Amino acid sequence: MSVFFEDFTIGETNVLGAYAFERDAIIAFARLYDPQPFHLDEDAAKATIYGGLVASGWHTASGFMRCFIDWLDRRRQESAARGEQLPPVGVAPGVNDLRWPAPVRPGDVVTYSTTVLSKRAIHRPGWGLVTRRNIGVNQDGVEVLDFTSMVMTGRRSL
Amino acid sequence: MSVFFEDFTIGETNVLGAYAFERDAIIAFARLYDPQPFHLDEDAAKATIYGGLVASGWHTASGFMRCFIDWLDRRRQESAARGEQLPPVGVAPGVNDLRWPAPVRPGDVVTYSTTVLSKRAIHRPGWGLVTRRNIGVNQDGVEVLDFTSMVMTGRRSL
Repeated sequence: MSVFFEDFTIGETNVLGAYAFERDAIIAFARLYDPQPFHLDEDAAKATIYGGLVASGWHTASGFMRCFIDWLDRRRQESAARGEQLPPVGVAPGVNDLRWPAPVRPGDVVTYSTTVLSKRAIHRPGWGLVTRRNIGVNQDGVEVLDFTSMVMTGRRSL
Repeated sequence: MSVFFEDFTIGETNVLGAYAFERDAIIAFARLYDPQPFHLDEDAAKATIYGGLVASGWHTASGFMRCFIDWLDRRRQESAARGEQLPPVGVAPGVNDLRWPAPVRPGDVVTYSTTVLSKRAIHRPGWGLVTRRNIGVNQDGVEVLDFTSMVMTGRRSL
């Protein structure tokens, strides 16, 4: 387990972790960022296309980010424990094909995973770009999130 | 001002509103969803690629969503005030080409706008699909968010 560009293999899939979508967190997120009836209130949500309260899609994506960062942190700690010098934390210049194929409801636990699609060197010294496909699947095996991301990733060999 | 599929014109641009990224909201979002040093703590952020605290990209996108929903609500209220029967609230099956071309820093005010790229009928009765390009620009005119979205939009004529 490391966090260097060289150590990610194309085709490698990692389970990042799980995020539990509690009712109160769904509503709190929606009040701030996505105040639609099906995200805010269970009674109002019954009359909508979803038939009940569902999480904002941006909340579902943010749950991925939380699990991804926690996973990277665990990998960084393992590298540090081996005495390796850590690369700087990378940033993500973009995301493509972001889809929410099924809704997330209160009590759902979404497990996120990431697969390395491709990797390439970039002009910026010390960095590579890793393209990942990321998915979220609920406790019933239903996919609720799917997107690709480009992540700048520090290189071991400069 | 209406919210019906028929009333959106290809090429039409609307300013949705502005969202102020306060320092405390940037940190609160990051603690829950994107706990990286450059989103969490001003001192820790100084040593990173950004040289200071910046908002999570998912926060910048969520600020768009807040302004988009508030704008739709205003349009719905105007339709209702004219005695029109309102269409159901539409949902967004996906987002493409999501980019964060520049960081958002504490105190930045981001103005979001949306342009109709295309629209088409879909098989689901009563609905059309509107493809939009959405951007966010800070108080200095620098673009900080850019993506396209597909939004299911209720039809006037069934």
